[in-house]
Amino acid sequence: MAIQIKPRIAAFRKPSDISSEDAKSMPQKYFVASEIFAEEQKSIFFKEWLLVGHQSQIANAGDYVVQRVNGESLIIIRDKRGNVHGFFNVCRHRGSRLIETDNGNCAAIQCPYHAWTYGLDGQLIGAPHMDDVPKFEKADYPLQSANVGVWEGFIFANLDKNPMPLERWLTPLAGKFSHWNMPILQPAKRIEYDVRANWKLMFENYSECYHCPGVHPQLQKISPYDSAENDLREGPFLGGFMKINAGKSLTMSGNACAAFVGKIENLQQVFYYSIFPNMLLSLHPEYVMVHQLWPQSPERTLIICDWLFHPDAFNRNDFKPEDAIEFWDMTNKQDWHVCELSQQGIASRAYEPGPFSSRESIPAAWDREYLGHLK
Amino acid sequence: MAIQIKPRIAAFRKPSDISSEDAKSMPQKYFVASEIFAEEQKSIFFKEWLLVGHQSQIANAGDYVVQRVNGESLIIIRDKRGNVHGFFNVCRHRGSRLIETDNGNCAAIQCPYHAWTYGLDGQLIGAPHMDDVPKFEKADYPLQSANVGVWEGFIFANLDKNPMPLERWLTPLAGKFSHWNMPILQPAKRIEYDVRANWKLMFENYSECYHCPGVHPQLQKISPYDSAENDLREGPFLGGFMKINAGKSLTMSGNACAAFVGKIENLQQVFYYSIFPNMLLSLHPEYVMVHQLWPQSPERTLIICDWLFHPDAFNRNDFKPEDAIEFWDMTNKQDWHVCELSQQGIASRAYEPGPFSSRESIPAAWDREYLGHLK
Amino acid sequence: MAIQIKPRIAAFRKPSDISSEDAKSMPQKYFVASEIFAEEQKSIFFKEWLLVGHQSQIANAGDYVVQRVNGESLIIIRDKRGNVHGFFNVCRHRGSRLIETDNGNCAAIQCPYHAWTYGLDGQLIGAPHMDDVPKFEKADYPLQSANVGVWEGFIFANLDKNPMPLERWLTPLAGKFSHWNMPILQPAKRIEYDVRANWKLMFENYSECYHCPGVHPQLQKISPYDSAENDLREGPFLGGFMKINAGKSLTMSGNACAAFVGKIENLQQVFYYSIFPNMLLSLHPEYVMVHQLWPQSPERTLIICDWLFHPDAFNRNDFKPEDAIEFWDMTNKQDWHVCELSQQGIASRAYEPGPFSSRESIPAAWDREYLGHLK
Repeated sequence: MAIQIKPRIAAFRKPSDISSEDAKSMPQKYFVASEIFAEEQKSIFFKEWLLVGHQSQIANAGDYVVQRVNGESLIIIRDKRGNVHGFFNVCRHRGSRLIETDNGNCAAIQCPYHAWTYGLDGQLIGAPHMDDVPKFEKADYPLQSANVGVWEGFIFANLDKNPMPLERWLTPLAGKFSHWNMPILQPAKRIEYDVRANWKLMFENYSECYHCPGVHPQLQKISPYDSAENDLREGPFLGGFMKINAGKSLTMSGNACAAFVGKIENLQQVFYYSIFPNMLLSLHPEYVMVHQLWPQSPERTLIICDWLFHPDAFNRNDFKPEDAIEFWDMTNKQDWHVCELSQQGIASRAYEPGPFSSRESIPAAWDREYLGHLK
Repeated sequence: MAIQIKPRIAAFRKPSDISSEDAKSMPQKYFVASEIFAEEQKSIFFKEWLLVGHQSQIANAGDYVVQRVNGESLIIIRDKRGNVHGFFNVCRHRGSRLIETDNGNCAAIQCPYHAWTYGLDGQLIGAPHMDDVPKFEKADYPLQSANVGVWEGFIFANLDKNPMPLERWLTPLAGKFSHWNMPILQPAKRIEYDVRANWKLMFENYSECYHCPGVHPQLQKISPYDSAENDLREGPFLGGFMKINAGKSLTMSGNACAAFVGKIENLQQVFYYSIFPNMLLSLHPEYVMVHQLWPQSPERTLIICDWLFHPDAFNRNDFKPEDAIEFWDMTNKQDWHVCELSQQGIASRAYEPGPFSSRESIPAAWDREYLGHLK
Repeated sequence: MAIQIKPRIAAFRKPSDISSEDAKSMPQKYFVASEIFAEEQKSIFFKEWLLVGHQSQIANAGDYVVQRVNGESLIIIRDKRGNVHGFFNVCRHRGSRLIETDNGNCAAIQCPYHAWTYGLDGQLIGAPHMDDVPKFEKADYPLQSANVGVWEGFIFANLDKNPMPLERWLTPLAGKFSHWNMPILQPAKRIEYDVRANWKLMFENYSECYHCPGVHPQLQKISPYDSAENDLREGPFLGGFMKINAGKSLTMSGNACAAFVGKIENLQQVFYYSIFPNMLLSLHPEYVMVHQLWPQSPERTLIICDWLFHPDAFNRNDFKPEDAIEFWDMTNKQDWHVCELSQQGIASRAYEPGPFSSRESIPAAWDREYLGHLK
């Protein structure tokens, strides 16, 4: 399982790229049944590493973000030694939420209800009127913690008690993205989308460009749908690259909107990878776009989309991040719309799994990976 | 079961018109229980013929309406030979909705996601990149169809695989409405109502004018509540007629608002019939009003109301359709309001079935018919 | 169980005031589980006496209020003899709601659907077209009634068929509040709150001032949090009093806002009592504030708050009720906010019951009482 093909190694379509003879879209229940949704939450979202942000969001000691993860509120916070922690946003006294804002900086975490106070490492350091309670020891009441890890600058959380180490899980991708300088990138924009479709439809949608001619006329003009070549074709990490027409960039104007994020060898390619189960990673010469997918119910998904640029880019005259953001916001919405149409049709009693075309080998591979996680 | 009494044959109240000694409103569960609602959907709404529109809505080849039927989206479309089809609005590829608009005209049905294309007869005629998929045959992937039929110009759909033919089902009404020229009428207005009450309450409400003095003061002035005489008193089709005061019409002004729809013999009568399970047919000298009832949940019903006039009426100076529409919109809302009050009270633990009066024989007959369908 | 300590008898903290060694907040299920909510409704809210209003709201014959009680709509009405009745707001004919307004005056109760009419004592006195229905007798169809009672001017309802008499239930409080003249007080204001928290969190919140320094800075300045002394420490009625700083009052301005409600002996105290299961009674020298709590779901509670003053106060120049209302509206919202934060945190998988401090003996006692009712 040691896939190490880097993007610059030219990929080409193989027989395995063609969907197998019987490959079809999945049965209805996977998109509408609450039992399947519960099973997914248990077997995937409470077991696997989940993208929750980028380390640039919490650069300094006391910086935090509060992130909803599978219905839980997690405080992702940097302590004075620079370590990143994940804490459940729940006081050990009577259970109150501790932090109400989405992000900020604090010297300590103090409960707004009865003023119990925790250090940045989660230890209880203040609890008024508890001294006369027999046997009470502050050391017994630290904040409940969740596993967190950082990979290529991105912060992941895992709610399983004993997960596989993050680096081991991502071994197949080791070194693959070093040209993009992801650990030092800085965010320029976040947009959240409330999509009325099952989360898997967005992964299937991201995994093929068969839909591009009709759904994305603007994208299609800059990056031909039939230029897609995949280098990760099986497993939890899937994708490849597409050509960008000469002299063009994926922006509204068609021009590059910022300094390059790194020493990119082929500036006329855009790379698209899905990182199971909740990350979409889109690498452009001058920016990285990353999606977090958060299933809310069988028919609803929250999608958080961030655009990251090289820190040097921000102060240059040619920095026009909105040129890329507007382009992808438009394209995102085109995608979510057809995903919502799919959700509606799949919920019909008339729906039956349909055959994948020769351009849909990656959706088929993603489905296989997904199904392997459920059993 | 060969009831053939036509409206012009004077009806008169019979002993059977009086509700039987023990006739009472139905127990609470029929109005609030989700199990009963599911049973109704299965035994009635997925089995019987349902009013979905009028043929005037799709006059030409390629004309279509998209109608929600029991949670399903159906495309009702006319093909080039003039035949009317019903198709589930679901692509055979990956299940996307095909048509998003409520109505329109098309040369072929093309999926907005991956551009699979179907003819007006439902045959798959285009599927990009499917040629290299082994064993794929377009002929295997026509649109899924639903039964449709036309009676007196009205379009009905039936989601059962093998329903009784529409004409046979409606045999007892054969010829009964020929004076109203319903096949050639043209719609002037549609209003949709979102009513917070069980669908059966609207049928019971429509079936008696015992409530008219208090609920409909305007109607009561034009058409006396105690003039009701029923000629269909048992079975799936129920109703009769009421007098219209001399020189009056059921409009806001009290004057006729259009040319007569046909050669009506008694211009001072209005006929009201309920056509089980989702149609209310109200025949006036100068217009026909028709309601579709669509149960959404035990406590909620979507009602679609159309007003139809003779095609010649539209170009005459005396054409004032809004005079009738405003009158019935007001009267409809008065009815829906008391139905909503009933829903609220019936949901109480204090509710018990109450006795029907001598003016409520048709609601009692409707209840009997309904209960017979549940078995 | 004959607790008769009156407020003026100085209370002092006892060992039992200290929460027992193991006292902790309750497990998660009591705040989120629909099964527990259903059990509470059955064992508590359909069994115990519930505060529904004050007799000043229905002073005259025919005066009524319509109150939602556990999802039921109750008509609380005064008849011509001065008796207060509770009727289910449901017609005996076909179940319609009878009264749609929140309050008013009527000579008789007439159904808006078919005009059945009931006297103020609930007897059916008019039913059109029922004469020819065999065996129909008006006497068989009175309105369904609910138990009501009046205590200290407050109206209580009980939906149990055979409840303990109201006076017996409230025996432990007999005479305790006579100084406040509650039967003759008049309402100045009602505010309703829709709180996204379990109803028990509001009782726990009301039962301690451990949270006051952080949550209520304005209250804290006028009434020190550590001045609380409890005289009812176990059972369905719990509470005590707190000091008001010399020359101050619980108002925005800090000044008294009205004439005293009675011959209060200690004007520098405010008394707080919870009356199981849905009443909070807050007695100030110049006004009485009373909360009704109505659980809507495990996570949602409707709270109705009334401010009552002495009838003589209304016409005096020093009458500034808004000074008190604004103060408590602000303080109420501060409380509901932390209750909502608690609800959110308790719903987390990370929540575990936490230890009560020495200042939380009354919440612990309230929890014990509550748990005893569930058995």
